[in-house]
Amino acid sequence: MALLSYLATEILIPVASVVGILFALVQWYIVSYISVTPSASLPKGDVKNGSVDNGHDYLLHDQEGGESVDGDLVVVKCAEIQEAISVGANSFLLTEYKYLGIFLGAFAVIIFVFLGSVENFSLSPQQCKYDTTQECAPALITAAFTAAAFVLGVLTSVLSGYLGMKIATYANARTTLEARKGVGKAFIAAFRSGAVMGFLLASNGLLVLYIAINLFKLYYKTEWEGLFEAITGYGLGGSSVALFGRVGGGIYTKAADVGADLVGKVERNIPEDDPRNPAVIADNVGDNVGDIAGMGSDLFGSFAESSCAALVVASISSFGTNHDFSAMCFPLLISSMGIIVCLITTLFATDISEITDVKQIEPSLKRQLLISTVLMTVGILIVCWLALPSSFHIYDLGSSPKLVQWWQLFFCVGVGLWAGLIIGYTTEYFTSNAYSPVQDVADSCRTGAATNVIFGLALGYKSVIIPIFAIAVAIYVSYALAVFYGVAVAALGMLSTIATGLAIDAYGPISDNAGGIAEMAGMSHRIRERTDALDAAGNTTAAIGKGFAIGSAALVSLALFGAYVSRASLSSVDVLSARVFIGLLVGAMLPYWFSALTMKSVGKAALSMVEEVRRQFNTIPGLMEGHTKPDYATCVKISTDASIKEMIPPGALVMLSPLIVGILFGVQTLAGLLAGALVSGVQIAISASNTGGAWDNAKKYIEAGASAHARSLGPKGSDAHKAAVIGDTVGDPLKDTSGPSLNILIKLMAVESLVFAPFFAAHGGLLFRL
Amino acid sequence: MALLSYLATEILIPVASVVGILFALVQWYIVSYISVTPSASLPKGDVKNGSVDNGHDYLLHDQEGGESVDGDLVVVKCAEIQEAISVGANSFLLTEYKYLGIFLGAFAVIIFVFLGSVENFSLSPQQCKYDTTQECAPALITAAFTAAAFVLGVLTSVLSGYLGMKIATYANARTTLEARKGVGKAFIAAFRSGAVMGFLLASNGLLVLYIAINLFKLYYKTEWEGLFEAITGYGLGGSSVALFGRVGGGIYTKAADVGADLVGKVERNIPEDDPRNPAVIADNVGDNVGDIAGMGSDLFGSFAESSCAALVVASISSFGTNHDFSAMCFPLLISSMGIIVCLITTLFATDISEITDVKQIEPSLKRQLLISTVLMTVGILIVCWLALPSSFHIYDLGSSPKLVQWWQLFFCVGVGLWAGLIIGYTTEYFTSNAYSPVQDVADSCRTGAATNVIFGLALGYKSVIIPIFAIAVAIYVSYALAVFYGVAVAALGMLSTIATGLAIDAYGPISDNAGGIAEMAGMSHRIRERTDALDAAGNTTAAIGKGFAIGSAALVSLALFGAYVSRASLSSVDVLSARVFIGLLVGAMLPYWFSALTMKSVGKAALSMVEEVRRQFNTIPGLMEGHTKPDYATCVKISTDASIKEMIPPGALVMLSPLIVGILFGVQTLAGLLAGALVSGVQIAISASNTGGAWDNAKKYIEAGASAHARSLGPKGSDAHKAAVIGDTVGDPLKDTSGPSLNILIKLMAVESLVFAPFFAAHGGLLFRL
Repeated sequence: MALLSYLATEILIPVASVVGILFALVQWYIVSYISVTPSASLPKGDVKNGSVDNGHDYLLHDQEGGESVDGDLVVVKCAEIQEAISVGANSFLLTEYKYLGIFLGAFAVIIFVFLGSVENFSLSPQQCKYDTTQECAPALITAAFTAAAFVLGVLTSVLSGYLGMKIATYANARTTLEARKGVGKAFIAAFRSGAVMGFLLASNGLLVLYIAINLFKLYYKTEWEGLFEAITGYGLGGSSVALFGRVGGGIYTKAADVGADLVGKVERNIPEDDPRNPAVIADNVGDNVGDIAGMGSDLFGSFAESSCAALVVASISSFGTNHDFSAMCFPLLISSMGIIVCLITTLFATDISEITDVKQIEPSLKRQLLISTVLMTVGILIVCWLALPSSFHIYDLGSSPKLVQWWQLFFCVGVGLWAGLIIGYTTEYFTSNAYSPVQDVADSCRTGAATNVIFGLALGYKSVIIPIFAIAVAIYVSYALAVFYGVAVAALGMLSTIATGLAIDAYGPISDNAGGIAEMAGMSHRIRERTDALDAAGNTTAAIGKGFAIGSAALVSLALFGAYVSRASLSSVDVLSARVFIGLLVGAMLPYWFSALTMKSVGKAALSMVEEVRRQFNTIPGLMEGHTKPDYATCVKISTDASIKEMIPPGALVMLSPLIVGILFGVQTLAGLLAGALVSGVQIAISASNTGGAWDNAKKYIEAGASAHARSLGPKGSDAHKAAVIGDTVGDPLKDTSGPSLNILIKLMAVESLVFAPFFAAHGGLLFRL
Repeated sequence: MALLSYLATEILIPVASVVGILFALVQWYIVSYISVTPSASLPKGDVKNGSVDNGHDYLLHDQEGGESVDGDLVVVKCAEIQEAISVGANSFLLTEYKYLGIFLGAFAVIIFVFLGSVENFSLSPQQCKYDTTQECAPALITAAFTAAAFVLGVLTSVLSGYLGMKIATYANARTTLEARKGVGKAFIAAFRSGAVMGFLLASNGLLVLYIAINLFKLYYKTEWEGLFEAITGYGLGGSSVALFGRVGGGIYTKAADVGADLVGKVERNIPEDDPRNPAVIADNVGDNVGDIAGMGSDLFGSFAESSCAALVVASISSFGTNHDFSAMCFPLLISSMGIIVCLITTLFATDISEITDVKQIEPSLKRQLLISTVLMTVGILIVCWLALPSSFHIYDLGSSPKLVQWWQLFFCVGVGLWAGLIIGYTTEYFTSNAYSPVQDVADSCRTGAATNVIFGLALGYKSVIIPIFAIAVAIYVSYALAVFYGVAVAALGMLSTIATGLAIDAYGPISDNAGGIAEMAGMSHRIRERTDALDAAGNTTAAIGKGFAIGSAALVSLALFGAYVSRASLSSVDVLSARVFIGLLVGAMLPYWFSALTMKSVGKAALSMVEEVRRQFNTIPGLMEGHTKPDYATCVKISTDASIKEMIPPGALVMLSPLIVGILFGVQTLAGLLAGALVSGVQIAISASNTGGAWDNAKKYIEAGASAHARSLGPKGSDAHKAAVIGDTVGDPLKDTSGPSLNILIKLMAVESLVFAPFFAAHGGLLFRL
């Protein structure tokens, strides 16, 4: 048995969760100190003037010139804009969740009916599937618990997304106002707010899962096979919300962004985020509902799914059969340790050291990744040593159980963790304009938009290579040591630093919004330069966050795939069987189908946005001159309506494909489908998000003009810059809609197959039966 | 035994091949009647004037205005330009083949040494692998025969590409001159020339294979296992040349095309193919070395590989063990029947009916596909009935042999044939500007290049769906009926109408060149309109040709995969094994890596072309005014050097990946790699070539202005048209370099693995052994 006692486990997990939540609230409290009401707006502490000579120094500590005169006015404006963004985001999310509620309510019923039908709705106990000497709960009861876990997952995911949006819209104007005091202060404000989201999400997800397990245990008692089968519903619920959040939010944000850019930047030649542009509020709302709420639900889904995959495999291995609760809770203990490690890591950025130069922003964020990874490596070792028996058996598919030593599991978790770091660093290399790949793309703008697009696509394709090797190594090592349990905990390892990952990821859209607010509030050029510096780093961190999301999605899906195969009682998935192969081929096609739907949706929605923005510029007198306010609300409505309507076809494709294939073609073809979607989807997702990030930063590289090379391409408005803007616009749906939604496609299809596996095994494959 | 006797088989195959070759020569002879020397240039037959009122009628039959005055001059000019293109293409191919010769010579040695090492270079006979009661030739001898077959395949492939280029450069100016007499005449000239290539290639490939089998049989006698093992080298040789032909030719043509367009159309605002543009000859040379020679080698490779895959599976099945030569030659008999069927089909386009309206061009080409498919269905039935025993056994992997009825094989071949037609028609729907997908893309140009690129990418992704389902059905049906032999003959079925497919495919670049020559020779606007009409249809047929190439490549690769698995003695390829899965994942990444390399190569080569073209415009006085000739030769040299240099890294990636994976990770991981590359590569290849074709035709749609909608986007030079040109330029490397090269990637890796399978099985997997 494990060193850690049952009681200690039952205490440690909720304590870590609560500590995480408290830490998030403290951060939130500190951010709330930044006032957005005029009276107390200017703490007179660190005013410092006259350091303009030193290249970037004035970006750091310097009150806004003329602050005393119009300071109050600026604060009021910022507060107003923040309010508008917050209201827009709130109303979209509520609309989205309403439709989601109807759909997912219906889906909960489907889960109950389909899974209940496995034993023909019988209420008498049945022989267990794995431990055939015991009696297990009837399928109908487990179906009910699964549906309940699904609803819990849905609610937690909704909460994660919603809270993230709340803190982001709470923090954006505050970041702008802090930017008056210097880039360092603004950076900390944005980063702290990101941390609020990261810690709330990680802690809530863990706490709810922990509570659910303990509640379900009241009924199931020692019958863990059924208990953890039911828990898988939690992962499915989390990812279902994430699907619609990512797709709907992604369409919303990019319809607004592309629409605003096409008319504003290209046709009317006004700056980004100019308050005269009618789509500008919708654009900023989009950052919060897509990049924040969508991303939050996505990573929550990954966390929930990898935990569920690990738990379901463990429940039929020696942890489950020996009823070793501490070892069973190993995945939750890893996540608990992650929260503590990330807490310490965050202090490095917010309290222990402070950035003193704009050039330090990106290294500081990168250092967060490195610190958390190094600390977590030690943390994993401690958890493995305490929570695991010295050796144990993992149930291997179709062969004898595999004997695993406790330290072997350390390597499983560790290889996932470090693979995540490698993916993060590779992504940074390919999307940051500090390195040659993005600079080459920027350089190709010399010959126009076409070469820019060609070079950008090539960059995205190339950026796939190292992450795929990293994932392959992680899979091989973890599988070799502890079969699919190893893969599941490797995924958990990659996600163990999720709080830090989310903090640096959420930092991006918050800074983006802060820049938007500065522009709209008419703040000076200097403030805008500071927020731009934050934002450029944010593009890179957003790409890193997507890299993590994709990498973990690959591992999670494979773990879920393993759990599915085991629950569907398949002993092998043989590519040489035509049933499997056609699944593999069609599965590899699904990400393309899905991307076609989402990109076309963004294109269509953007076109209607363009029409509306043009209409307003043409018909509202004085708009271009800044005398009249545009009609922001109509643009917000167009984005909302388009995204709600357009998220249905891609959503249906993902939700229905496993059901249709499972019912008509059976478990073998479905297994092929999952494997195909996984290996193909990962590539498109990584290349799409890196291509988009690179184009965005190539544009920023030309705009910032920080080097002689960059200045030779610029300034804003040059032919090369125009070409760069076209690349950036093409990249928008790739990096923020279709790319990141693909993670969810592969994860969701896998977890859905896992949940419905008993049903497919019992009633599936109608076509082949005929 | 089969109805068809041994003797009849031995007569029918060479007779069909020779008939095909004679037919091609007759077509060539007819084309040669079009004189390119001034004296006899104008047969005065069907001159018809004064029908300009009727919309398009003047395009049909109408001597060029002012013919009598400058007719001779135009003919001389055309002949000159043709000569320049021919010399350029010739010199490039010779250079390419020289490097190829060195590389492939070395590779032949590797084949011999690696395969010879399987039995430690022993010369004593060994126990056979499948029929263990018999003695088989030593591995060293089979290694020598394999190397010889490889060299034969290389030579035949080189011959196919070279002859195609010869007839294409022979026909382009003739097509231009025929365009003076009307679009119908020009169409027939271009189509006949395409047919020369189609028939020469199909017949040569079949004849050489037939001769090789009969020669090898002199040594092997009744030991067919070793005989057909050695024959696989023929497929490997064919595809190796195709790889470098496609990649090198693709880089050549697109470097020139993109470079010419970026400076000519975008910066200098001169028309496409304007003789003032220094890159214009290189661009036209490119069509011949890329789209003609490359495509020819590619389809020859597919033909050779699917024949080899079918033969190697048959040799260890009841055909082989019963020594039923007619049944054994079933794949060759299918191809023989294909030649006869295509011959009849061709007469429908050239002699039986003649087009009388430009709108009939595309339907006429589509009809070719339909006629050949319908006739071939009957042809297949006849071959199946004559050449096959009423029932026979096919060796199934890892289980008992499968009993197959003769008519079941008819369905295998038929399903491949009809899947090809579906792929062709789907491709036409997505790339022809007669349908809404391309028109939507054209419409999106209204809002600029960014939306054009987004819509185009989405179109390409969407166009994957139906072909993948068609391929999946073909695989499922053919596999269910006759396991991997079924898949191999399904691939042959799709390729059985290769002569017609190649004719309509080669027609495209010939028309494209004809248009270029018309422009360069300064012929009137009318002639250019006619060649443009031919060319627009050519874009669609080129896409259809690529669709066939990709679809057949998928089937061929799967058949080769099956043969590989059998030769490597694998009883299953289980995705649940980590070794296989990491292969699958990395395999799915390889097409991205490959695309990144090829696209970057095109981009780099195009940039140097741009520099050179700009330099000439800036430094050669009087060039822009048309007083001085540009320096075409330097541009030709840039394209040549760039493509020779840049084809090495992607070529090495494809050739070395299976070797490295096989040697280091063994046969299981390699099987995963092949499956992954196959299912992922097919999708990218289809979407890339359709996206490119759609962009090209969206541009042509705006330029032609044939409908009110099209006119609202035009004319040439409008903002929408400029946006369309950017899309077209982005599509160039996608559709002509990276996309079509991916077929070869998946086929070549599979056939290479098949050839080296005994070596990997004996000595591979070093890493896992440690």
